[in-house]
Amino acid sequence: MTPPRLVYLGPPGTFTEVAAGRAPGAADAERIPVASVDAALNAVREGAADLAVVPIENSVEGGVTSTLDALGAGRPLSIRAEVLVPVAFVLAARPGTALTGVRRVGSHPHALAQCRGWLSQHLPLAVAVPALSTAAAAQVLGGAAPDAPYDAALCAEPAAAAAGLDVLARDVADNAGAVTRFVVVSRATAPPPPTGSDKTTVAASLAQDRSGALLELLEQFATRGINLTRIESRPQGTELGRYTFSIDCEGHVADPRVSEALMGLHRVCPQVRFLGSYPRADGLAPVPPAGTADSDFTAARDWLAALLSAGAAPGSAPER
Amino acid sequence: MTPPRLVYLGPPGTFTEVAAGRAPGAADAERIPVASVDAALNAVREGAADLAVVPIENSVEGGVTSTLDALGAGRPLSIRAEVLVPVAFVLAARPGTALTGVRRVGSHPHALAQCRGWLSQHLPLAVAVPALSTAAAAQVLGGAAPDAPYDAALCAEPAAAAAGLDVLARDVADNAGAVTRFVVVSRATAPPPPTGSDKTTVAASLAQDRSGALLELLEQFATRGINLTRIESRPQGTELGRYTFSIDCEGHVADPRVSEALMGLHRVCPQVRFLGSYPRADGLAPVPPAGTADSDFTAARDWLAALLSAGAAPGSAPER
Amino acid sequence: MTPPRLVYLGPPGTFTEVAAGRAPGAADAERIPVASVDAALNAVREGAADLAVVPIENSVEGGVTSTLDALGAGRPLSIRAEVLVPVAFVLAARPGTALTGVRRVGSHPHALAQCRGWLSQHLPLAVAVPALSTAAAAQVLGGAAPDAPYDAALCAEPAAAAAGLDVLARDVADNAGAVTRFVVVSRATAPPPPTGSDKTTVAASLAQDRSGALLELLEQFATRGINLTRIESRPQGTELGRYTFSIDCEGHVADPRVSEALMGLHRVCPQVRFLGSYPRADGLAPVPPAGTADSDFTAARDWLAALLSAGAAPGSAPER
Amino acid sequence: MTPPRLVYLGPPGTFTEVAAGRAPGAADAERIPVASVDAALNAVREGAADLAVVPIENSVEGGVTSTLDALGAGRPLSIRAEVLVPVAFVLAARPGTALTGVRRVGSHPHALAQCRGWLSQHLPLAVAVPALSTAAAAQVLGGAAPDAPYDAALCAEPAAAAAGLDVLARDVADNAGAVTRFVVVSRATAPPPPTGSDKTTVAASLAQDRSGALLELLEQFATRGINLTRIESRPQGTELGRYTFSIDCEGHVADPRVSEALMGLHRVCPQVRFLGSYPRADGLAPVPPAGTADSDFTAARDWLAALLSAGAAPGSAPER
Repeated sequence: MTPPRLVYLGPPGTFTEVAAGRAPGAADAERIPVASVDAALNAVREGAADLAVVPIENSVEGGVTSTLDALGAGRPLSIRAEVLVPVAFVLAARPGTALTGVRRVGSHPHALAQCRGWLSQHLPLAVAVPALSTAAAAQVLGGAAPDAPYDAALCAEPAAAAAGLDVLARDVADNAGAVTRFVVVSRATAPPPPTGSDKTTVAASLAQDRSGALLELLEQFATRGINLTRIESRPQGTELGRYTFSIDCEGHVADPRVSEALMGLHRVCPQVRFLGSYPRADGLAPVPPAGTADSDFTAARDWLAALLSAGAAPGSAPER
Repeated sequence: MTPPRLVYLGPPGTFTEVAAGRAPGAADAERIPVASVDAALNAVREGAADLAVVPIENSVEGGVTSTLDALGAGRPLSIRAEVLVPVAFVLAARPGTALTGVRRVGSHPHALAQCRGWLSQHLPLAVAVPALSTAAAAQVLGGAAPDAPYDAALCAEPAAAAAGLDVLARDVADNAGAVTRFVVVSRATAPPPPTGSDKTTVAASLAQDRSGALLELLEQFATRGINLTRIESRPQGTELGRYTFSIDCEGHVADPRVSEALMGLHRVCPQVRFLGSYPRADGLAPVPPAGTADSDFTAARDWLAALLSAGAAPGSAPER
Repeated sequence: MTPPRLVYLGPPGTFTEVAAGRAPGAADAERIPVASVDAALNAVREGAADLAVVPIENSVEGGVTSTLDALGAGRPLSIRAEVLVPVAFVLAARPGTALTGVRRVGSHPHALAQCRGWLSQHLPLAVAVPALSTAAAAQVLGGAAPDAPYDAALCAEPAAAAAGLDVLARDVADNAGAVTRFVVVSRATAPPPPTGSDKTTVAASLAQDRSGALLELLEQFATRGINLTRIESRPQGTELGRYTFSIDCEGHVADPRVSEALMGLHRVCPQVRFLGSYPRADGLAPVPPAGTADSDFTAARDWLAALLSAGAAPGSAPER
Repeated sequence: MTPPRLVYLGPPGTFTEVAAGRAPGAADAERIPVASVDAALNAVREGAADLAVVPIENSVEGGVTSTLDALGAGRPLSIRAEVLVPVAFVLAARPGTALTGVRRVGSHPHALAQCRGWLSQHLPLAVAVPALSTAAAAQVLGGAAPDAPYDAALCAEPAAAAAGLDVLARDVADNAGAVTRFVVVSRATAPPPPTGSDKTTVAASLAQDRSGALLELLEQFATRGINLTRIESRPQGTELGRYTFSIDCEGHVADPRVSEALMGLHRVCPQVRFLGSYPRADGLAPVPPAGTADSDFTAARDWLAALLSAGAAPGSAPER
């Protein structure tokens, strides 16, 4: 039997590779690095891969816009799982380089941003040079070319080791608790069953020129007692001021309060794309406010059914 | 075959008798006047009558509290229809009485209130004397007793004629367009099918000490684009500040937006009593706002079903 | 110096007289019973009296519609205080009458309603006969006329004693904790200073045919964390479905959160009538939710003033 | 007299230089390119420059996160104006290069993203290589080094010409109407007077773990009829799910409805940073909904003042 094929945003040595190794089912999978988020998702869309692992947000830098945009367009995909990876950068250089000799630091722009404070304190004169990824920065620096575009790289420690670099400094990220969240994506398919600790991801666009449209969108969640764990606006690309909102909420599409909220979105938004319901990495179970538990929705449906068939329902007629 | 029995708030000669004559099915029914709203509704509850006709609100005086309270407690009943009757009062007296000789005017307190302006202008010194009904005031005045408790009665013209009284003045109500609304009530039963022009009546209590609880109740209607045509607060009777709201809204419990709003009420209110869905007397059809038409609800349900079975749905995946 | 003149809804012996005796300043006042709520309020409007004491709501029967309507129209008045009076009815009759001999019970309709349960249990065959007031019922029954219109009266115990009647039964009200709330009214004048435990009364009308208009009204209070202690709808009198809402809220018009809410009402409602800010009878002080304390409003105003003069404000610029 | 000093995100040849040339007061200013958004804003903070011009959002790529983050932290700054610049890219290469020979395309990641569709259609095999800016990509390619890191650059046409490159293709952006919005920033100072067509920018953080907190924030605008023209979430950097919202709204802080909304934000949000009120580039004047015009706020304040001094106000007392 062929093992499943899992593509991830490469090269090896990035935090995405770490996430790919922790994805459900990864143990048996053939793991293949690809060059971009688009390439990873399209490999799944076209059947060249079964799963893709891509970053979706970082606790310091925010949403990964290329992932948000790529998930929101093209043939539909399903998020099957999420993986959280703590982010710890080192500053690495060719053996023999001293910290004082570093004039140019290369890395992915997100990594440069996350270490901005450390760099301005310890290397105030160094220039930040963007690279395709943190691992690519290490590889370029570790390569044979005599004139590398930078003297040091911000990367994960294993990537530094793989490239034959020395570590000049550890824990150089400004925020010690930084974490990147990855999603595991398949072709569109029915969601896994609810576990009691789930998340749901949707992308919903707002109608133009309607005051209060975002309020109306949020009320679909709030009136059902559903917390949002992520909300990001992405421009629709046509003109300033028109947005699609990428949203993660507590709960599973099969939970009554979530299914009702999603139907509400479908009614009030010009476009809604469901991107999946999947288990939460943190295992937390939401505590729905009074009147929004599954049992409240079930009781309300039973009550309505009794009204439609008999005009009244047990328990609905208080004697006073 | 026995004709159906219809009880109404008597005596004959009141506007309620007019309403009872116009109720659907009244032509074939035996019409029986009873002494109080409670007596009328209990006759239906106990099987002594099939239908009751009782006033529920007046455009000048507001809700008929005895009806609201009696419908909201005890064994459940179903409103089957509504009847609107224009209210036109005359001032009637025993033959020979001149307007200038009227010192005391008797009638039902609601009628006295509706003619307050006319009385203060034309009979500024007359005392208002409450009677059990407008028709009873006419009957008492038309009776044989030499010392009636008032010199003139405010009543409907037919009641004046039936009691052998002369009309001293017509159109004595302060508001020429006054109308009273009556409901036709049966034992609890499945509602009649939707007609496209329906109303739904419910009584919903609010939890104590929760700021914004009424707001939350109203949002159940507003977020589904449902207009309220009547809303009245009734004290729960236990202490000041605790209310049950008696509400009429547009639409039929079988309309998706109404059924979802009622389920929402069931979830957020400690007690909800459904009192019926029935055709509107004015034949108006509501125009639901964008996103709240029946077709919007149906489309949202179909979309959700596709998500649950396949993870995506046709039309939900905009290419951009 | 002439004592102030205080009119109240008479006759003597009613609960209103009790309330009048407890009104602030009543000790020095000449207390004058009048025949109706309208008469009491007009006496104040025209300068014939300084203060009027009238009932505004009852914990069982709800709002006193004649008071609500009379306060909401005509020359403006100011509510200066509120008085709460527990309501305790007795059933009284001419000496020698036995409970079993009572066929007709007279009283004010509100009193009859509040004792409905007791009457149906103990006097199931007795007819309820409306009277102008509970005290008037006692007086009529205690009078010389041989053929009184009823055999027993529901009234306050002092009224029974004053009329020479015997008490057949005490505590005949269905709800033992029933209370009636009275307001003390003067000509329009600046409100008394805030005490920290105040109420504010307004009447606000809704625009016709605007879905969500009541929601918008309530949001003016809710977004400022203000609880409502009374809300009653009154028809505007022109047609069914158009309402003015009579509202009591926590707080004083001079409190920032209340003044802002009232200005909000003025902007969204076609008509708003301010009816006074005055000390609460229960002495309770509201606990405003986070962000709605007076200090929060003051801080926000100071912050805004700094922005307008300097473009930034101390404390508004988190370093991160 | 020394001319004012204006710094902008360089190098020359970028769209930011175009924006800097169009900024109010730019004609007389010394224009100085700097290496980063942080450097530009800090030059203003420290007095080395009077004004900074930095990009804040792009119609395709969304918010410029480095600008949003830098404006939201550190010593306060004031946005004085906005400038809109249409974005038009060319693909440029060293003379003699054919389109079919392009294997690697260099540019700023945002430019690469905006031309993604064109590239995948015309150069499906080319690799995208990130550069510090569009102009830097052109400069590197136009430089003397024989082994440039890419064969072609995406940049503005003037930058291609300045670097001695040939244009291989014009209008290569996927969205023909793309526009980038820039802001002109000074040290914190009182805002310019309202023009009737203004925008206001704020950054507001949400309290943790409060369901509906974003809803509450948005209601501050919605209940005053204020449209938002931009809303973007930025992580607070501490953990996933905690956000600061960067918001542009219609109107000027001196407009009553905007000042009241900002005071509302100050009350409900843990942190609010005001970033300026300034004229809109498009000259549009908002049309406030009923009840939210400046005159409505003024009328409400006058009414409140009358209540506080006299207990009633002209026009607030409908006779009915």
